[in-house]
Amino acid sequence: MTRIAVLGVGLIGGSIGLAARRRLGAEVAGFDPEPEALDRAGERGAVERGCDSVGTAVEGAEVVFCAAPVGALPALAAEALAASGPETAVTDVGSTKGDLAVAVAAAPQPERFIGGHPLAGAESSGVENAREDLFEGARWYLTPGRRSSGILYDRLQRTIAELGARPQAIEAEAHDRLMATVSHLPHVLANALVSEAAEALARESERLPEVGPSFRDATRTAGANPAIWGDIFLANADAVAEAIDGVAARLADAARLLRDRDAERLAAWHGGAREARRRLLESELVGGPLRELRIAVENRPGTVAEIALALGRAGVNIEDMALSPSSDMRSGAVSVWVAGAGEAERAAATVRELGHAVSIEGA
Amino acid sequence: MTRIAVLGVGLIGGSIGLAARRRLGAEVAGFDPEPEALDRAGERGAVERGCDSVGTAVEGAEVVFCAAPVGALPALAAEALAASGPETAVTDVGSTKGDLAVAVAAAPQPERFIGGHPLAGAESSGVENAREDLFEGARWYLTPGRRSSGILYDRLQRTIAELGARPQAIEAEAHDRLMATVSHLPHVLANALVSEAAEALARESERLPEVGPSFRDATRTAGANPAIWGDIFLANADAVAEAIDGVAARLADAARLLRDRDAERLAAWHGGAREARRRLLESELVGGPLRELRIAVENRPGTVAEIALALGRAGVNIEDMALSPSSDMRSGAVSVWVAGAGEAERAAATVRELGHAVSIEGA
Repeated sequence: MTRIAVLGVGLIGGSIGLAARRRLGAEVAGFDPEPEALDRAGERGAVERGCDSVGTAVEGAEVVFCAAPVGALPALAAEALAASGPETAVTDVGSTKGDLAVAVAAAPQPERFIGGHPLAGAESSGVENAREDLFEGARWYLTPGRRSSGILYDRLQRTIAELGARPQAIEAEAHDRLMATVSHLPHVLANALVSEAAEALARESERLPEVGPSFRDATRTAGANPAIWGDIFLANADAVAEAIDGVAARLADAARLLRDRDAERLAAWHGGAREARRRLLESELVGGPLRELRIAVENRPGTVAEIALALGRAGVNIEDMALSPSSDMRSGAVSVWVAGAGEAERAAATVRELGHAVSIEGA
Repeated sequence: MTRIAVLGVGLIGGSIGLAARRRLGAEVAGFDPEPEALDRAGERGAVERGCDSVGTAVEGAEVVFCAAPVGALPALAAEALAASGPETAVTDVGSTKGDLAVAVAAAPQPERFIGGHPLAGAESSGVENAREDLFEGARWYLTPGRRSSGILYDRLQRTIAELGARPQAIEAEAHDRLMATVSHLPHVLANALVSEAAEALARESERLPEVGPSFRDATRTAGANPAIWGDIFLANADAVAEAIDGVAARLADAARLLRDRDAERLAAWHGGAREARRRLLESELVGGPLRELRIAVENRPGTVAEIALALGRAGVNIEDMALSPSSDMRSGAVSVWVAGAGEAERAAATVRELGHAVSIEGA
């Protein structure tokens, strides 16, 4: 019988435990610095054997998952390596990998450590929200180093596939640069924008005008989860700083084109962004390129429901949705994204039958 | 009987015509360089008298609305001033005001021109989508200059209030700085982010990872409407360039704090952004501060509808909404924003009855 250890039993650790027990039939030992969390994980069925130390939990385990907050991972991974036997693979689930790789390199038998990062939802934290299917179909990055054991890597990636995820190997540094750009940088930009706007409005003694959804969309993540994001920024500090430099250079270019009134190159710059977004966001979609439906609506309770319900009845899946209330909050627009031109036509016809004006953008 | 002239009969000009005829009982004359647009405006009831020149349209008008694209406004406003009599107020509906004010200052009787900018939805363009109530409750900036006629300003602001909007005076330069920061800058940042990400992904030979909604939210407006945005950027070039400089300085600060591993000041910077966003986005809400409900859902047709419908039945108005599909597009989270703590509790109870796990963020 496969033996798995989970160190830290929150949403991710708990979900690994549930999936390992039910899908692999594994025996799952768990440890958590908070005894109550461990009790709840036991009640939830996420761990079979609650342990009061890392050493007891990792005993005889084939794979050890370190599932603590990012800041605690280097010490925890080193402790797990030191406490476990020569046949045990140790991995983690943190969102940055470079600093951890450096920390672990100094631990005993670093070849047994292979970093990991499941891209799985964290809509609500805690083992109460753990689910056996949390990793179903999710990408799970693995960051083996040059000295990593091939046998243990193979075991780890098979285990992760059995949990339901799609393992994908990537260099630790490349992983961190990738996350810096597509995950951490958007948060930095949202923070900078919202702070700039707050200062500008105070300077003009103005309140935020009703400028539509662009400001709200662009700043939705500003200041999100301070406890978590402080750690993440610091753990990936150099890569995030470099991504900031990259975007700052692009901004300087844009400011120069504006001051030069260079209409032609501004248009090329804007068009390039349009093309880049389309390419990026559509690369993962099976149904075809995203199409945006813009629907003019009354902003009263029930309107969004009516539209979404009708689309559901017609079998149209909504990939993304945004509301643009007008200033009076009584009328506005709903944007709905669906995959593929055919789906968009079907969706538009459905919405028109409800009596709303609708247009398909970018068609 | 009040006489109004509308120069340019698209969505905005057409809606002004409809509102002026039905709400003010005004006689509305219209001009458009495209004869077909003028015909459609007539059929739609947006203009009573279609004219084949600016001169004929503005004859005897008390207020002339210039409703052409931003790039065409300076010449049109000057032509309207030259063609109209000494009792006629001339205004426009463009989204930037500084360059226009400069252009008009050289025209005859510039004291009769007062710039305007209605913050009203443009979900779909064209007179076909014009609505009598487009400006209902909307903020409508007016930018009188030092030499503007007080009598004509008073007439203009009363006319605009009668169209249903809320007129608000602001200096042209302050207006442009405001729009640069809260409306134009988000588009610039989205463009820079998406271009940076596209290059980073190409460099690592990677596809966009499923990193949740932050990247999608932050880049939703990237490359939007090239025809419109090229003009807007250029018309407000200096103010946008300055806003870019402001945000670039903030980004440089953040990069420095990261490289210094300055956890304390990073936390203060992040917390400041959190506070700024809350202050900005809540200032206009009557029901109280926005509360975010995070709902874990199956991502199948009908789920969003079911939730929105139940909230509608319970009389809860959805102020904003975002979907966060997980990587497998089969499960994920729906975020719903409602105004006020009481509304949030009621909404959460409603969603729980449907069997979904829900948490209220920032409560």
